[in-house]
Amino acid sequence: MAELGTLVLLRHGQSTWNAENLFTGWVDVPLSEQGETEARRGGRLLAESGLLPDVVHTSLLRRAISTANLALDAADRHWIDVRRDWRLNERHYGALQGKDKKQTLEEFGEDQFMLWRRSYDTPPPPIEVGSEFSQDADPRYAGVDAPLTECLADVVARLLPYWESAIVPDLRAGRTVLLAAHGNSLRALVKHLDGISDEDIAGLNIPTGIPLRYDLTAELKPVTAGGTYLDPDAAKAAAAAVANQGR
Amino acid sequence: MAELGTLVLLRHGQSTWNAENLFTGWVDVPLSEQGETEARRGGRLLAESGLLPDVVHTSLLRRAISTANLALDAADRHWIDVRRDWRLNERHYGALQGKDKKQTLEEFGEDQFMLWRRSYDTPPPPIEVGSEFSQDADPRYAGVDAPLTECLADVVARLLPYWESAIVPDLRAGRTVLLAAHGNSLRALVKHLDGISDEDIAGLNIPTGIPLRYDLTAELKPVTAGGTYLDPDAAKAAAAAVANQGR
Repeated sequence: MAELGTLVLLRHGQSTWNAENLFTGWVDVPLSEQGETEARRGGRLLAESGLLPDVVHTSLLRRAISTANLALDAADRHWIDVRRDWRLNERHYGALQGKDKKQTLEEFGEDQFMLWRRSYDTPPPPIEVGSEFSQDADPRYAGVDAPLTECLADVVARLLPYWESAIVPDLRAGRTVLLAAHGNSLRALVKHLDGISDEDIAGLNIPTGIPLRYDLTAELKPVTAGGTYLDPDAAKAAAAAVANQGR
Repeated sequence: MAELGTLVLLRHGQSTWNAENLFTGWVDVPLSEQGETEARRGGRLLAESGLLPDVVHTSLLRRAISTANLALDAADRHWIDVRRDWRLNERHYGALQGKDKKQTLEEFGEDQFMLWRRSYDTPPPPIEVGSEFSQDADPRYAGVDAPLTECLADVVARLLPYWESAIVPDLRAGRTVLLAAHGNSLRALVKHLDGISDEDIAGLNIPTGIPLRYDLTAELKPVTAGGTYLDPDAAKAAAAAVANQGR
């Protein structure tokens, strides 16, 4: 049997709404200039490490797609196979989409705010169909039973079928797989891979723009728990900054 | 039977080597700033025309890939399916790759120069394996019986199997197909679609950055010979400029 390929996770860099401290979810905002710089740096880290993707999987959201495009161009791997799926999207933030994080914190209080942000199974209120920041008329979700809100448990449930049916086959074929996605879709996958409990996943923050390498056994268990960041020092500093968002 | 989808051809905009007047072929140079602007304008033309691609096919060369990425982002279609294949690459320019067009014209004379540039079946001398501008060690062509030089007839021969096996099925499925490629791979396809003779194809120049729409019959014949440019006036002016390259 061929040796299992390597999995590389890459969280998109800063988007314009990250910079403005708004809940984004499925709203399709672009990367900020800083986010573009982060993506290119991620690509250079891949090239310097000799970790060259054979195939890239992205969500259907611009900030992950642009991150993949910029990183792969910087790594001279712009020509590899591309797959996209809504199941890699960021968590749908329901009625919070488009709202200011700080205002939401003040309006609803610390407990409710942290419940929506970090509890495993409490989704925000559903977004109103037809409202400004809903995706019900978006052609990219035609034929998809798209959610109106999600908790992290929902993201795990909709992500795993894609992991099993699309990403694992690429790994079994011995390919190096780049997965360019989002804070919560990557947390959902890492929870599954590392067997993190529903409680402990609340404390896990994945930094942006720093490739996270997972070597996996034939049983798809991480050889090193939590994987290995290509720039561990930057990852540590960035994770701490993410944890303080909205404060 | 589903109605046949629409085919949209898009020639990449100016590359850094176009700007320097060098023969490029399979050398993987980036778009110039002007080329990036052309790509975005192509995307805006698609959006304004309501001609929204469902799938994009590109070559393995950065200038076509970046053109597709920028145009689709501008048209809000960055999330569609992507397919790439070396058979959509620019003509391999053999030993001329990396050479200055004006110097080549002066060194070899008008007749030889035009024979290499525009004759249907006379390839330039093959590129030397291992030389600066050859692609023999390039991992993207691993497993491909890559050419060392090509005439336009060679491009037609290697392009048509991809047309039949990958693009036609998308059209038969009723999808709008964007094909982001190169002057000569697009000339090869247009020659086939419009039934242009080996002699007459020499006079056909496809302008950069302006989407060219082909509606096709069930027998894959163009409804309108030569297709329809989304900006006909700009196309006319641009085609004239291309014809004068190297002068």
